[in-house]
Amino acid sequence: MPAPHRTPLPIADVVIADEFWSPRRETVRTRTIPHQEARLRDGGMFDALLLKPRSHDDDDRERFPIFWDSDVAKWIEAASYALASQADPELDAAVDKAVALLEGAQQEDGYLNNYFTAVKPGQRFTDLSDAHELYCAGHLIEAGVAHYEATGKTSLLDIVRRYADLIDREFGPGGSCEGGYDGHQEIELALVKLYRATGERRYLDLSLRFIDNRGTRPFYFDVEGERRGRAGYFGGREDRPFTPRDQRGREYAQSHAPVREQDAVVGHAVRAMYQYTAMADLALELGDDGLREACERLWDDLVATKLYVTGGIGSDPSIEGFGKPYDLPDYTGYAETCAAIGLVFWAQRMMILTGEAKYVDVLERALYNGVLSGASADGTKYFYGNPLASDGTVERSDWFDCACCPPNLARLLTSLEQYVYTADADGLWVNLFVTGSARFAHAGQRVTVAQESGYPWDGGIAFTVTEAKAPLPMTLRLRLPAWATGAARISVNGTVLPYSTDKGYAVLDRTWAAGDRVELHLPMDPTLVRADPRVRSTAGKVAFQRGPIVHCVEEVDNAAAVPRLIVSRSGELRTEHADGQDAIIAEGLVDGPAPDGLYSTAAPAAEPTAIRTVPYFAWANRGKGSMAVWVRETP
Amino acid sequence: MPAPHRTPLPIADVVIADEFWSPRRETVRTRTIPHQEARLRDGGMFDALLLKPRSHDDDDRERFPIFWDSDVAKWIEAASYALASQADPELDAAVDKAVALLEGAQQEDGYLNNYFTAVKPGQRFTDLSDAHELYCAGHLIEAGVAHYEATGKTSLLDIVRRYADLIDREFGPGGSCEGGYDGHQEIELALVKLYRATGERRYLDLSLRFIDNRGTRPFYFDVEGERRGRAGYFGGREDRPFTPRDQRGREYAQSHAPVREQDAVVGHAVRAMYQYTAMADLALELGDDGLREACERLWDDLVATKLYVTGGIGSDPSIEGFGKPYDLPDYTGYAETCAAIGLVFWAQRMMILTGEAKYVDVLERALYNGVLSGASADGTKYFYGNPLASDGTVERSDWFDCACCPPNLARLLTSLEQYVYTADADGLWVNLFVTGSARFAHAGQRVTVAQESGYPWDGGIAFTVTEAKAPLPMTLRLRLPAWATGAARISVNGTVLPYSTDKGYAVLDRTWAAGDRVELHLPMDPTLVRADPRVRSTAGKVAFQRGPIVHCVEEVDNAAAVPRLIVSRSGELRTEHADGQDAIIAEGLVDGPAPDGLYSTAAPAAEPTAIRTVPYFAWANRGKGSMAVWVRETP
Repeated sequence: MPAPHRTPLPIADVVIADEFWSPRRETVRTRTIPHQEARLRDGGMFDALLLKPRSHDDDDRERFPIFWDSDVAKWIEAASYALASQADPELDAAVDKAVALLEGAQQEDGYLNNYFTAVKPGQRFTDLSDAHELYCAGHLIEAGVAHYEATGKTSLLDIVRRYADLIDREFGPGGSCEGGYDGHQEIELALVKLYRATGERRYLDLSLRFIDNRGTRPFYFDVEGERRGRAGYFGGREDRPFTPRDQRGREYAQSHAPVREQDAVVGHAVRAMYQYTAMADLALELGDDGLREACERLWDDLVATKLYVTGGIGSDPSIEGFGKPYDLPDYTGYAETCAAIGLVFWAQRMMILTGEAKYVDVLERALYNGVLSGASADGTKYFYGNPLASDGTVERSDWFDCACCPPNLARLLTSLEQYVYTADADGLWVNLFVTGSARFAHAGQRVTVAQESGYPWDGGIAFTVTEAKAPLPMTLRLRLPAWATGAARISVNGTVLPYSTDKGYAVLDRTWAAGDRVELHLPMDPTLVRADPRVRSTAGKVAFQRGPIVHCVEEVDNAAAVPRLIVSRSGELRTEHADGQDAIIAEGLVDGPAPDGLYSTAAPAAEPTAIRTVPYFAWANRGKGSMAVWVRETP
Repeated sequence: MPAPHRTPLPIADVVIADEFWSPRRETVRTRTIPHQEARLRDGGMFDALLLKPRSHDDDDRERFPIFWDSDVAKWIEAASYALASQADPELDAAVDKAVALLEGAQQEDGYLNNYFTAVKPGQRFTDLSDAHELYCAGHLIEAGVAHYEATGKTSLLDIVRRYADLIDREFGPGGSCEGGYDGHQEIELALVKLYRATGERRYLDLSLRFIDNRGTRPFYFDVEGERRGRAGYFGGREDRPFTPRDQRGREYAQSHAPVREQDAVVGHAVRAMYQYTAMADLALELGDDGLREACERLWDDLVATKLYVTGGIGSDPSIEGFGKPYDLPDYTGYAETCAAIGLVFWAQRMMILTGEAKYVDVLERALYNGVLSGASADGTKYFYGNPLASDGTVERSDWFDCACCPPNLARLLTSLEQYVYTADADGLWVNLFVTGSARFAHAGQRVTVAQESGYPWDGGIAFTVTEAKAPLPMTLRLRLPAWATGAARISVNGTVLPYSTDKGYAVLDRTWAAGDRVELHLPMDPTLVRADPRVRSTAGKVAFQRGPIVHCVEEVDNAAAVPRLIVSRSGELRTEHADGQDAIIAEGLVDGPAPDGLYSTAAPAAEPTAIRTVPYFAWANRGKGSMAVWVRETP
């Protein structure tokens, strides 16, 4: 089995001290994480771990406790990442308290789930299709690994290992659930993390088993459904246009076909992303070409036909998932924050698996746009869905009954270190442009490289070798974003150098010394982006982009509601930087008032106007008003 | 009380022998009505009138029987209109059989409702907000009046009078439901018809009582809800985003405010249309200016902000009703067939009330477009909703669980006579251009005027006085459609005459003799229509119209899926007439393929193409494919 030859640098070895990211991460640490802790306390999620008997009735609100263990787990995971980069005794103690609750809730045999212990005792693992049981287990495992890696404590890791061992018995050969897998993928990627943290091969095998069981015949969800009688606990839900046992229901959970045969991204977007992430992880760990090829096919389908320009995915609100190819509506598009986060996970694994920068291009697109839009500027309000246009009625919410997105965003931002650099035997790969530093071992010595930039607003990025004891033969790879192709300049110690590129990275292979300085210059002209004409919501329209930032037009900055604006194709684009972010100013027109009632044969009058944008991630922070990413263009 | 001074000519006095309408009406008579009779038989609607005890459970399909009496009633009504214009002993016998079923189902005290007799006995009139009880009664009354007027038989009229008398007692002063009104308006307009057919003033008073009770405080649906305990039979339905007892729920049923104070069309579109129709009827019968002014305010709101170019109304599928002003989405727009039919009813009443042609302009827009699209070319498949664009997945259905639209369309087409002419003391008003004749009494003599045209494809329309015994001083008013304003020509006996216009009608006031011939020429150039720029789905787009016919573009006739087409603003429009209908051919462009994946900075290439339309009513008759009424336009 090939060893993974590229790995992300661990959180503790990466410093982020970045004008763009650090305030956002600080907001997560000082506001979001405490806010979420309060919600877990006030919302009853912590109390649920006391396992007091509860009744189950048909009231919809009674259904949410099936997710609650994962809410607690994601909060612990986010808090652990925060602790990894910055000591915080109070937070550390709060996490310990939550871990103690989990310890108390764990059953003698290792089982750990508040719902199937207190509300539906005796029915564990009988409704995998809908009950999110292994999904919750997966988040607990991720939390256990993060907590261990951040604090060195094994308190939660031991708990989740006991639980994973139970699951391994139940879902292994001869177990009560042999052949089973979860209705919401998550545990598969978590088990790979547990394998990496513990070296226990059977966690990897169990992950592979879940992946390879999926979608085989007879369909496990049919089998368990028969076993339990027609009704699931959450089965025939009226708010879904399908059941777990029809084709659409199977596609919803990507269980319609064996994963190795899947070639189109379908169904619930978060489920899909978590599955593909695990597939890429397994492909890497096992050198499994079948899984890699399936991932590559699925990736190609996604980026060619189902990806919003913001990096959002999953356009169909009725399934929180994928529509048909090119079905990317703007006003009604779903683009769940969690799905974009899942795409970040998958893209990172694909880069590690293949060494190709194109995956990080999409990761960056999602991260700076469709992920970041999920939180308000002050970090305490959230979008569940991230539409690309609004009639002025859309606002972020304080919390959600199904509160998956806020803690998911928190855990991503607090673990951002993992996405900046990758290391391998040849040296360092720079994926994201984030001011700070990377510390790693290379050729037997400890090396530190500092990175500095005003990214994403400025394309000048400097790298300095700040620690290298001896002359250091090493390859430094710098990602060249697709939008900068052919136009990036690189100088080393002040001299502009030609450079070769490989899979989207500039390759600087030389002998380095402390003090060496590389300057990368990425062109940052604002541009207009057009979509494939098969996307019907964007026909005749353009989006604005500068560097990695996709912009949008908000009513508050413009002369009229945004559907009335028209960008001049041949007009000039200008950037203004103010209040910590860019605005793009475009020449354009604004439709005049209706000449004659609702319908008229007269051609509309239009006046020249300047159209002003804001970064998409920053929309909806100044009250209600119409917004659009895609704006009409004069041919 | 002023007598109504304008009345529609009765069905028996109008002949329709029209190339456009007669085949459609014949299809309704020979295919739709028998098809619907079979569905009533096979679907259990007739059997339900046998009142065998049935159980009620939560299965959604068990809910539909609350509508079933109205399905039977609408079928009887349509069949009666058909019998009024053409003898058909077999159909006459089938109607008698249905009437006998209704007679058998009527209770001793006059009550007549299958659901509250057989399924929920003892609970009549306790859930007016949701149970459609008076709605069904209203349809029965309309059927009774139509049956009586068509056949002279009082069998059904007597039944519905007994039922109306019971309702009058229960909802009158001191009755068990004093202050009440139905959750789905319908009985109000039906009672006006019953008053006109019987001369019984108390039916008119009861109608006015329902209208004036509506929306007063305390809200009756709150009161009855309290009386019955929290749950309705159909109350907290999960498929609706509100309850009958919140503001949105009240607006849904137009019971949020006294009707005389209502000034914006809101809520469920069919409910609204039926209410406004009754308000206009009462305004006419009672000379009630308050009701007339409310109707005029509501009309202005509708046509200025909430009317599709097809005459469809009610853009929001979640309530089958009105969205916000200018919220007229194309792909997801609802535009229920029944709502457009309701608009035809209301518009007719408004014309009768005011003598203004602008109401008939909207009536005609709805009739030829958003109503007619509700049925397939062969008359046996139906749209419930009539969106203005399709991605190729939308098709007409054979029937619906909630089968309101097919029989509604049938009863409208079989009673089309009522909409063609209006008569008053001065003479004849021509509202619609339909080949055939009108017979009426004027100044003591019997007069017949024949009408002949190739409308809606040809703008030449001839009127001939074919019966007039003596010199006949009479005013003939011809509606001049708004799209023909200023360009219509009129000649009498071959001589082009100047004419005066009044409220949108050309006024020909002269002494007529048999053989006199009037020729009206309406210009029929194809035109491009633009919407108010506040309608976001149509920004930068045009619709095609020729005469009253709104066209659309279907993929099958064009070079590509319709979102890729662009009409040249300055290009020529040409009409081709083939296979019994027009096509408009426009110069335009078709977007080339994507230059570089899903998103690209390159400007799209476009090739010249000819864009071909079909009438909107005729779309989706040639298999699946994309369709759009609104097509992008080059500025």
